[in-house]
Amino acid sequence: MAKAAIIGGGVIGGGWAARFLLMGWDVAVFDPDTEAERKLGEVLAAARHALPMLYERALPPEGALTMVATLAEAVSGADWVQESVPERLDLKHKVFAEIQSHAPEAALIGSSTSGFKPSELQEGAAKPEAILVAHPFNPVYLLPLVELVGAADAVARADTVLRRVGMHPLPVAKEIDAHIADRFLEAVWREALWLIRDGVATTAEIDEAIRMGFGLRWAQMGLFETYRIAGGEGGMAHFIEQFGPCLAWPWTKLMDVPELTPELIKMIADQSDAQSGERSIRELEALRDRNLVAILRALKGQGSAAGQVIAAHEETIAIPMEDTVPLRTVMRSVPADWADYNGHMNESRYGQVFSDAADAVMIHIGADAEYIADGLSFFTVETKIAYLLETHVGEAFYVETRVTLAEGKKLGLSHTMRRSSDHEPLATCEQFLLHVSLETRKSCAPSPDVTARMEALGQSHAEAAP
Amino acid sequence: MAKAAIIGGGVIGGGWAARFLLMGWDVAVFDPDTEAERKLGEVLAAARHALPMLYERALPPEGALTMVATLAEAVSGADWVQESVPERLDLKHKVFAEIQSHAPEAALIGSSTSGFKPSELQEGAAKPEAILVAHPFNPVYLLPLVELVGAADAVARADTVLRRVGMHPLPVAKEIDAHIADRFLEAVWREALWLIRDGVATTAEIDEAIRMGFGLRWAQMGLFETYRIAGGEGGMAHFIEQFGPCLAWPWTKLMDVPELTPELIKMIADQSDAQSGERSIRELEALRDRNLVAILRALKGQGSAAGQVIAAHEETIAIPMEDTVPLRTVMRSVPADWADYNGHMNESRYGQVFSDAADAVMIHIGADAEYIADGLSFFTVETKIAYLLETHVGEAFYVETRVTLAEGKKLGLSHTMRRSSDHEPLATCEQFLLHVSLETRKSCAPSPDVTARMEALGQSHAEAAP
Repeated sequence: MAKAAIIGGGVIGGGWAARFLLMGWDVAVFDPDTEAERKLGEVLAAARHALPMLYERALPPEGALTMVATLAEAVSGADWVQESVPERLDLKHKVFAEIQSHAPEAALIGSSTSGFKPSELQEGAAKPEAILVAHPFNPVYLLPLVELVGAADAVARADTVLRRVGMHPLPVAKEIDAHIADRFLEAVWREALWLIRDGVATTAEIDEAIRMGFGLRWAQMGLFETYRIAGGEGGMAHFIEQFGPCLAWPWTKLMDVPELTPELIKMIADQSDAQSGERSIRELEALRDRNLVAILRALKGQGSAAGQVIAAHEETIAIPMEDTVPLRTVMRSVPADWADYNGHMNESRYGQVFSDAADAVMIHIGADAEYIADGLSFFTVETKIAYLLETHVGEAFYVETRVTLAEGKKLGLSHTMRRSSDHEPLATCEQFLLHVSLETRKSCAPSPDVTARMEALGQSHAEAAP
Repeated sequence: MAKAAIIGGGVIGGGWAARFLLMGWDVAVFDPDTEAERKLGEVLAAARHALPMLYERALPPEGALTMVATLAEAVSGADWVQESVPERLDLKHKVFAEIQSHAPEAALIGSSTSGFKPSELQEGAAKPEAILVAHPFNPVYLLPLVELVGAADAVARADTVLRRVGMHPLPVAKEIDAHIADRFLEAVWREALWLIRDGVATTAEIDEAIRMGFGLRWAQMGLFETYRIAGGEGGMAHFIEQFGPCLAWPWTKLMDVPELTPELIKMIADQSDAQSGERSIRELEALRDRNLVAILRALKGQGSAAGQVIAAHEETIAIPMEDTVPLRTVMRSVPADWADYNGHMNESRYGQVFSDAADAVMIHIGADAEYIADGLSFFTVETKIAYLLETHVGEAFYVETRVTLAEGKKLGLSHTMRRSSDHEPLATCEQFLLHVSLETRKSCAPSPDVTARMEALGQSHAEAAP
């Protein structure tokens, strides 16, 4: 069993503790703050809820967590020591000296510092080569990135350790203040301060400008691969030719610009080729679009950010379902996130489709969002699906639904999912629902209004039975 | 039927054309480029594939698309004119003059300009107040953001039009070169050029530094709400006190920094309160974590970016399934993106769980990823699910699976999903699968090895039947 020592248990240290612990490591935390245990507990609760959700299988059993009274006790027998104390170099030097006088010979010491270079951290240390920058991003228990800066051997060993706890180590070639990512964050932060000071935008508007646009691109491709696509078939060099001159314009308050020499342009174009060259621009575009669709749909599922925009817009393009027999309950196409490794719509998504079809029937008989908010709903009790034909990403389809049972609290539905292009049946579903109280979670009779509409619908479908 | 005129049909103009068209508008495109029709066709094909996937219902029928030979023809009768010609002010002035001599009196003219201010665009125009900046983000057919800068009346009218096609208009209070978002992009771009020139990082490393870390945060919250959380219960003012001094450090090459006066700090803190104050830091953290889990899982589904890191890590923590009767085929917790409005796991996700359980059985009998890559697999033909108890987000559960039929190409499975805490059954599923050739898409016998393992498994389960 491996052991991690966490020195400093705030938001960042607590996030480190959670990641090691949930990946099966024993963790000892040292933090002199009298509130440390409460704060750590809060981070751990959030991590225990969220981190396992990323995985389709259970994580290994948690390691043992101890809050210890001394730094010496924390680092005793530790394989990895993570320092997350405040950003004061003198304090960090003192902590490193104490760590190195009590930790095992082989222990690596990662520093969560946002700004200091390893050469600064290592000043005066007994074993300077064991100290490296291991800079994570909040929340540490979810975001994979960790920047590694230090001696080659320490970085290589750290890489192995941190991959084992699910992180994505990024070795930084040259030490530099603030490493890589925080330099961008700082450049953006300063530009944001100017925009606020000058009354151009508020904090909320700046956040919208990011999360409704380029933030979505950056979550999946970053800066250069995105711009490679923008350059079109001409690629990265073409993009720089187009965009480069803008750098001479007074767009920001911060004006020191590297000269775009032919050498620099070639360096960037070559690096971009090495990074993305095996995919054509069309392939990159398709990848970008699939990722954006998946991210936007994920946010839509949470009712958040850009996903909220789509959900609200969807309401405005809603066409009320007509009262035909059968009902046309669903009409849509197969989104990218519904495909599986067989290259067709995952079987569970048929369940989604028929669940949506049932929702449409519920809305039709008055058991709508408001009705559910009042504490009544239908729960599906049994579903039987027959899969007839494969369905592919992007394919349009619709569902025809017949009411087979509408009696008291019982609702029976028979669905046929058909391909829009040729009306071939793709799947059928027999569904049995019970009306329930969301308060008692027990079955109960629907409201008089819903009962009346449900029975009328049942009767009209029975009369029109084929 | 509304009509949009698209002047300039490149990547940006084509994206505009696609968005209007797919939302039911008639669209006329004018672009003198001889390759314009081919280029537009490519953008449209991508948009027709991707945009409908964002919606759970079919979009309105497409409008009529025409490629026209003159600008006059394009803008005739148009309700909205979108200019996306190259970034040369003299050219834009010429185009605006021609638009305004042929377009209807009431037509608004949106410019896709990244850099010019409306006052510059409007210089010498016949109806200057009808010209405004409507700056979108690539791909225009997927990203909702459009920055609006111009006269209040034009911005208000544009807001209404662009919401109708699913966009998120962001009115910018004061005109400024490059509006809001591109100022950030430019600041980051310049910092990136320095990092590459100085050999600190390559294009690939810079992209990793973004998409494995803060890019994921920015896709859902942006800059200030993220930092509000980092400030903890002390909020935004506390964050600035902590982070503010770093601005005086030489972290970037671009050093002109606004002075952090008490007035500026108060302005930011007040704006942040107005933006996010109705939620506590704990609530914001929980929201952030749900969003991050959903985004990370979306990327995992696409095998891309940070999602690829999680998928690869998952392989390393895999514990092979033991050969027990019943088999323990699934063991995991319910992720945030599986919940529905009833507050419990959506019924279709039970299908997902049992589909995963079947996958585990397939792997157990040798029908694994390699076998599937060779062109053979099992398809589910029929599923019958009984829902017994509700299941909630974060709850741990497992699935026990018995083989009920293993004959030739037929595989029958009986699953019971149980809550980990008390082993109560949550749902049961009877599943019937057929072995198929992925080439012919028809049923066929499994390989001899898979047949042998499948029959042995079937026999051991039959003998151990309860």
